[in-house]
Amino acid sequence: MRRGEHDPSRSISTARLEGFSDGVFAIAATLLVLDIALHPPGTPLEQVLRAWPSYVAYVISFLTIGAAWLGHTTLTHALDRADPILLRLNLLLLLVVGFLPFPTRLVSESLLDVNGERVFVTMYGLTLLAIRCLVAVLLSYAKREHLFTSANDENQAESEEHRFWPVLVGYALAVLVGLALPEVAVAVYFGLAIYLVVPFREVGQVLFRR
Amino acid sequence: MRRGEHDPSRSISTARLEGFSDGVFAIAATLLVLDIALHPPGTPLEQVLRAWPSYVAYVISFLTIGAAWLGHTTLTHALDRADPILLRLNLLLLLVVGFLPFPTRLVSESLLDVNGERVFVTMYGLTLLAIRCLVAVLLSYAKREHLFTSANDENQAESEEHRFWPVLVGYALAVLVGLALPEVAVAVYFGLAIYLVVPFREVGQVLFRR
Amino acid sequence: MRRGEHDPSRSISTARLEGFSDGVFAIAATLLVLDIALHPPGTPLEQVLRAWPSYVAYVISFLTIGAAWLGHTTLTHALDRADPILLRLNLLLLLVVGFLPFPTRLVSESLLDVNGERVFVTMYGLTLLAIRCLVAVLLSYAKREHLFTSANDENQAESEEHRFWPVLVGYALAVLVGLALPEVAVAVYFGLAIYLVVPFREVGQVLFRR
Amino acid sequence: MRRGEHDPSRSISTARLEGFSDGVFAIAATLLVLDIALHPPGTPLEQVLRAWPSYVAYVISFLTIGAAWLGHTTLTHALDRADPILLRLNLLLLLVVGFLPFPTRLVSESLLDVNGERVFVTMYGLTLLAIRCLVAVLLSYAKREHLFTSANDENQAESEEHRFWPVLVGYALAVLVGLALPEVAVAVYFGLAIYLVVPFREVGQVLFRR
Repeated sequence: MRRGEHDPSRSISTARLEGFSDGVFAIAATLLVLDIALHPPGTPLEQVLRAWPSYVAYVISFLTIGAAWLGHTTLTHALDRADPILLRLNLLLLLVVGFLPFPTRLVSESLLDVNGERVFVTMYGLTLLAIRCLVAVLLSYAKREHLFTSANDENQAESEEHRFWPVLVGYALAVLVGLALPEVAVAVYFGLAIYLVVPFREVGQVLFRR
Repeated sequence: MRRGEHDPSRSISTARLEGFSDGVFAIAATLLVLDIALHPPGTPLEQVLRAWPSYVAYVISFLTIGAAWLGHTTLTHALDRADPILLRLNLLLLLVVGFLPFPTRLVSESLLDVNGERVFVTMYGLTLLAIRCLVAVLLSYAKREHLFTSANDENQAESEEHRFWPVLVGYALAVLVGLALPEVAVAVYFGLAIYLVVPFREVGQVLFRR
Repeated sequence: MRRGEHDPSRSISTARLEGFSDGVFAIAATLLVLDIALHPPGTPLEQVLRAWPSYVAYVISFLTIGAAWLGHTTLTHALDRADPILLRLNLLLLLVVGFLPFPTRLVSESLLDVNGERVFVTMYGLTLLAIRCLVAVLLSYAKREHLFTSANDENQAESEEHRFWPVLVGYALAVLVGLALPEVAVAVYFGLAIYLVVPFREVGQVLFRR
Repeated sequence: MRRGEHDPSRSISTARLEGFSDGVFAIAATLLVLDIALHPPGTPLEQVLRAWPSYVAYVISFLTIGAAWLGHTTLTHALDRADPILLRLNLLLLLVVGFLPFPTRLVSESLLDVNGERVFVTMYGLTLLAIRCLVAVLLSYAKREHLFTSANDENQAESEEHRFWPVLVGYALAVLVGLALPEVAVAVYFGLAIYLVVPFREVGQVLFRR
């Protein structure tokens, strides 16, 4: 089989790919709340305020999953069809997304205790990095295998892909920084999640029209 | 880009917006049950009856999520297309909806213990208020950016939007009242959830026809 | 507005009704597994065998949710459109379905301890009864408001509806019996779940052809 | 009713079958993460490393669910319509998939403690075997009842079905081996999950083109 051709009997519609992926993204994001808890002693207000690392970890992980979901919609929006390898790469992405609640819990607990932070923050950063990498791999694979509907959509997905490089480098640097300064790494993960989700160009357009 | 125009390459179909949102709404609503538990001592019947605050908190939170889902269906029903900002505002709504099980758990536990109620009820009320506000923001944004299919649907969504104001004021007042009288605030949240879900006009039409 | 007419601006497509309902059904059914646990002391084999009430409760609740889902597909398959009241009745059904994991946990724990069974089995039976009733109410409402696509589908849904009566009476009797003999009631709930799910007529047709 | 004919009033569209199934697959896969936990004593790094059986059990169960989902997409992709028996067989598959997190938890805990492994690994293997069998039953039933859209799709599903036999035999042998050597059985389950998910033929085609 030559490059660019495809065997129609191997093509798979994207409807179930989207349904299953939306399910895993939504559940992983919503399960994060189960790990938020208050820890005595203290007045209720003190306990609520002292739990701030749980809230921060919830927001970072929720937004990172949200950003992966946004990248994933860009993929399936442009996708003409899926092929067996794409379905499996997608399973790998979902496996890592589904794992994220575990290091999120470790980080939020360790920020409460100031105990063993470095190991947990590193594990957390590596999971976030793996999610971004796999979103990039999915987009690259789909482009290389000509699974997109049209050149226009392909270009759009390509522009998405280029945006990934600074983010990937940012995650990799933050993982390294976290070995020495875990709190700084968590702050960078927070910043990257915000950066990935906020649509600066579009917000600029909306504000500029006024 | 002028107001009312839109860049087709930036338009996104609403199918995945609906799938992911339905997932988060459904999971957040269903996770609420995990926080219902019986607390010894007492006969089984006493324990079941004594757990009434858990049931009340479950019903309030489930109906509040249900009402947000109803508002969200009004939005996507009328929506012609999504744009990047709408997708992100929607993520913010889902982040708060996914957080709701945490203050729900705090309120149902504090109503059992009569300990620290005020702080937890305030946190709960602010979360409910944030959900209503973000549903209103989504509808306003979609209307202002002309994302609706037709003037008719836009008007319908607008009438939905106007219904929000008394509810928003109700939530804001209840949060203030809850600083002094937390039980009264919980009763108001219960009443507002019922009010948001019961379709008085339609029930009236059905009964009137008899 | 006269009977049989409908206001198009109030009609709602059934896609999101299905998506949200499928989500709640699937999550409530899958959360049931979290309440299965082994209890020391004993060898691993003894512990696994001694936990049989958890497995029974899991199967009853999963099949009851499955049967409600089957009834719900009959409804939405025949449905031409939803109206605001139907959406709210559906929310009420989902609220009870989402609550089912709680009495399921109580029953499986009480069958392990032989302590307080009657109260928990009664609560469980009332929840199962409420689910069946609300499925019946949804079908009746949709029929009476002429929300079905054609007379054919309406008749099919009607025949489903008639099948409900013996089941409803069965649940009501089992709740009463459970006040004295809780184990018998659990056996009846098991039998009713099997009866609701096994398609006797179709299995007969398949076997008869051989 | 003769073989090959079907009663249209009994046909059911596959949309909700897919929605509900995607939900259960996604939730069962994502709930697995809740059973990953660290166990003191030890430094954080020691605890993270010592928890490796949890990660292995997570990956095996996630990939097994992923493989069942892939088989299920092959089924529904080729399916022209569902019939009542297929819907119920599917419920049975989902019941077993939804149960998988429980033996997964037992295996990952027992690999940590080296206590009672044999019983738990056997239970785990039987659950994995049951999932594969039920996927095979669904495909066989759909083929025999002529529920597929075309002979082409039927042949494709048939080829999927034939791939099942070595896998089923592999699972059955591993269950027997696990009675004596539980760690070996777990390694085989890991290998089978990889084998089911990795698309060797397609990867070969992609690599060969270079």
